[in-house]
Amino acid sequence: MLIGAQWVTGTGPEVRSWDPRTGEPLDPAYHYGGDEEVARAASLAEAAFGPYRATDSATRARFLDRIAEEITARGDAIVQRAHRETALPPARLTGEVARTTGQLRLFGETLREGSWQGARIDPALPGRTPLPRPDLRQRRIGLGPVAVFGASNFPLAFSVAGGDTASALAAGCPVVVKAHDAHLGTSELVAAAVRAAVEACELPEGVFSLLVGDGPELGTRLVTDPRIRAVGFTGSRAAGLALVRAAAARPQPIPVYAEMSSVNPVVVLPGALAARAGRLGADFVASLTLGAGQFCTNPGLVLVLDGPGLDEFLAAAAKAVAANGGATMLTTGIARGYAERRDGIAGRPGVTELARGASGEGAACGAAALFTVDAAAFLADPALHEEVFGATSVVIRCSGTEELTTVLRGLEGQLTATVHAEPEDHALAAALLPLLELRAGRILVNGWPTGVEVGHAMVHGGPFPATSDARTTSVGSLAIERFLRPVAYQDVPAALLPPVLRDGNPEGVWRRVDGTLTRD
Amino acid sequence: MLIGAQWVTGTGPEVRSWDPRTGEPLDPAYHYGGDEEVARAASLAEAAFGPYRATDSATRARFLDRIAEEITARGDAIVQRAHRETALPPARLTGEVARTTGQLRLFGETLREGSWQGARIDPALPGRTPLPRPDLRQRRIGLGPVAVFGASNFPLAFSVAGGDTASALAAGCPVVVKAHDAHLGTSELVAAAVRAAVEACELPEGVFSLLVGDGPELGTRLVTDPRIRAVGFTGSRAAGLALVRAAAARPQPIPVYAEMSSVNPVVVLPGALAARAGRLGADFVASLTLGAGQFCTNPGLVLVLDGPGLDEFLAAAAKAVAANGGATMLTTGIARGYAERRDGIAGRPGVTELARGASGEGAACGAAALFTVDAAAFLADPALHEEVFGATSVVIRCSGTEELTTVLRGLEGQLTATVHAEPEDHALAAALLPLLELRAGRILVNGWPTGVEVGHAMVHGGPFPATSDARTTSVGSLAIERFLRPVAYQDVPAALLPPVLRDGNPEGVWRRVDGTLTRD
Repeated sequence: MLIGAQWVTGTGPEVRSWDPRTGEPLDPAYHYGGDEEVARAASLAEAAFGPYRATDSATRARFLDRIAEEITARGDAIVQRAHRETALPPARLTGEVARTTGQLRLFGETLREGSWQGARIDPALPGRTPLPRPDLRQRRIGLGPVAVFGASNFPLAFSVAGGDTASALAAGCPVVVKAHDAHLGTSELVAAAVRAAVEACELPEGVFSLLVGDGPELGTRLVTDPRIRAVGFTGSRAAGLALVRAAAARPQPIPVYAEMSSVNPVVVLPGALAARAGRLGADFVASLTLGAGQFCTNPGLVLVLDGPGLDEFLAAAAKAVAANGGATMLTTGIARGYAERRDGIAGRPGVTELARGASGEGAACGAAALFTVDAAAFLADPALHEEVFGATSVVIRCSGTEELTTVLRGLEGQLTATVHAEPEDHALAAALLPLLELRAGRILVNGWPTGVEVGHAMVHGGPFPATSDARTTSVGSLAIERFLRPVAYQDVPAALLPPVLRDGNPEGVWRRVDGTLTRD
Repeated sequence: MLIGAQWVTGTGPEVRSWDPRTGEPLDPAYHYGGDEEVARAASLAEAAFGPYRATDSATRARFLDRIAEEITARGDAIVQRAHRETALPPARLTGEVARTTGQLRLFGETLREGSWQGARIDPALPGRTPLPRPDLRQRRIGLGPVAVFGASNFPLAFSVAGGDTASALAAGCPVVVKAHDAHLGTSELVAAAVRAAVEACELPEGVFSLLVGDGPELGTRLVTDPRIRAVGFTGSRAAGLALVRAAAARPQPIPVYAEMSSVNPVVVLPGALAARAGRLGADFVASLTLGAGQFCTNPGLVLVLDGPGLDEFLAAAAKAVAANGGATMLTTGIARGYAERRDGIAGRPGVTELARGASGEGAACGAAALFTVDAAAFLADPALHEEVFGATSVVIRCSGTEELTTVLRGLEGQLTATVHAEPEDHALAAALLPLLELRAGRILVNGWPTGVEVGHAMVHGGPFPATSDARTTSVGSLAIERFLRPVAYQDVPAALLPPVLRDGNPEGVWRRVDGTLTRD
């Protein structure tokens, strides 16, 4: 564990990450921490919050850039270790390192651009009747120390120095990360990179800590520590909801941004099906089996209308699934859970198994599977609406647009919703889009939902249970807003105002003056 | 009750508003509605949501302006009725009508300006390596039907067509209001104004409904109706927390914006005390007794340092309180609760009563009161930290800046925090401001917290328990963001994109293109 400036070994039970290909435990052994470690990390984070949030945007941007540099410098070691712990291919992990450092740099840019502060000025109107108007200015400030829970499926981009950490640090909030047991060694390497950046930038040690501990126990302790003021989480619905409940039960409740569960419906409209059924089937399965199906945005449901091209689409998809050689999943537990859920789907009423891939080898292998069901059977069976974490998907055959609409209306909140459409489908697509908008954070046309671009316009979020808070995103520069709140300053003398709100716009950022955006 | 286009009388128990001056019930009698009325209003709201959110900004701005016009046209009747129901002076109520219509027009302007939509565009980069970048665009859309609970103390500005209703309607969300029992007649008049605007603008009837019913019962029913997607509330801590809990326990939890409880600390620094003690004492009591002390931003705590001017300040404040003739409170229940809390404060250990005003006449009269206590006794007694709704304030005498800081650190979240400071106090003020920022939504210097300007830079909100969600404001144009969430569109053809995201910027609004704000 890293608590502020100190590397610490817990006094709790031993824990190791495992090689999912062999099922063998990996060196070194780690030890769980407990209440004491949570308290020390939270206390250091609280102490760091004041000086850290007082740093200017440029200082924090340099810090984020430096973390990116430190990660890049350790890139080979990180990829090697992450490969052993997760069985994800080195090329994918190399890409994920680049994505993680790019994400940190994006928040650096966002800080330098400056409008994240949400500066607003309504100048005084001393002559206004019946009452003069005071001078009112507004900016956003950080919420306080943030607890971050890394995800198993992105050991870098959604973990120790992933999106939640980057956006919280950008917002001026110290971060306490709970390492995921499945990649403890990777977590340690990345924590060392962050620590090196803290030191190089001469920031208070409490800006960043990494804890190792029992998920429910240490996690709950962390989320209920009064010094923690917000939570970022990516993981299962059950674990996410437990944190949401723990946070809501605090004497002072705090926001929890939990990304939990999504089946990412894909609607293939008749024109698209008729025009490119074979290609669609193959592309669909490529998206489904990418990364052993272990993406939050994995296409778990495909909605099709009976008609020309459907048989060809199903045949192409079935062929691709059958040809799939299987893949090593992240952990043996995940592989076991996946197999149970997949085989559970196979046994539901009205479900037909179209194809199953090979199992592959090793302790954590997962075989892809493809099922079909008609709309009526799908609508009658809530079990089919739930996420299967892995390369399993269900094609829902709808008799017409009315049934298609009914199925879409019955879906829970999603991270993504995709439509495949040719120009002749646009009228139908236009009718469906409002439905999809209300159920998903991202709408795609003629693409596949896996692959989440890190940029300014991305939304990786969506209505419950995709996330616990649909008003936000966990990927992209908008995520900085999750850890901020507005504060107004009334008639505060210039000497006491934060620089961004002073006359003359010393930071040169966009501000809303009397309601109008300006850089004057 | 108004359910969509229909005026309906409930079948539940009779309920009347009362004249708080006489304690007499007022005509007409109303009747509580129940589950059936909630279901009908929610169902109409859900049906209206689709077409209503599809209207453009200009249409919704005209609608808000029209509500303002309809309220203005009924202004005399509204003021007359509200005066009978609340005992608030006609001049104050006339001002509140203007504030309410001004608030509606402010959201109209906000809609026309257009950046509320949060448009962001990251254009495709087909040549990027290793992977091309898709075309990604983002905007914000409304959450869905919103339940609004009016406050007793602002029968217009925080009630049927108050800030929550205005911001939700601006965001494209239909509104179902639960009328406050204390001003049913005023609620009916204002609902008629909104209904007239709905009709004049040819909007779907479900855009607005007004329900009358038992607070805990109908309120809970409304908040747990699956068609309601967010809640705005202003009122007591107990009632607010009950709604927060009910919303969190839904199968699909929803955001609750509850403004609940604040004691609004005022810190008088030594230079200010020495320079203008008498004036400060008189101004403080004027703020304290305004509107019978029934403001959310009423100054309930004053922190002073022992030193020159303190005796004069206390004497001036005590004199003003003693000279206060009392005032009729909003309801007999509020007056009873106020007297109990005030007299409870009087009996706490270490508390000295400095002055008490006259009781005034009538069933709902309240006498102002001023107490002092030393910092140690205050810190030891949680009862002194809680809001007293009415004209009671406690002056905390601190022996030095360390004790002052300790008291401030021990305070809960607040709507406002005020500092009185002369230039020689600025060093101390600068040290205190970061503490206050973390505990309040608005910082004032050399003013008094009562009086909440409606503008772009206002924050009326703050950390728990001031509100249930500090990331937002209930007053000012930023409030529109409470009822919005972001949606991203990936590779969506121009014909299917919402206009605000199309190439060429057809709406001419500010958009963030590749991270840069532009109107091009």
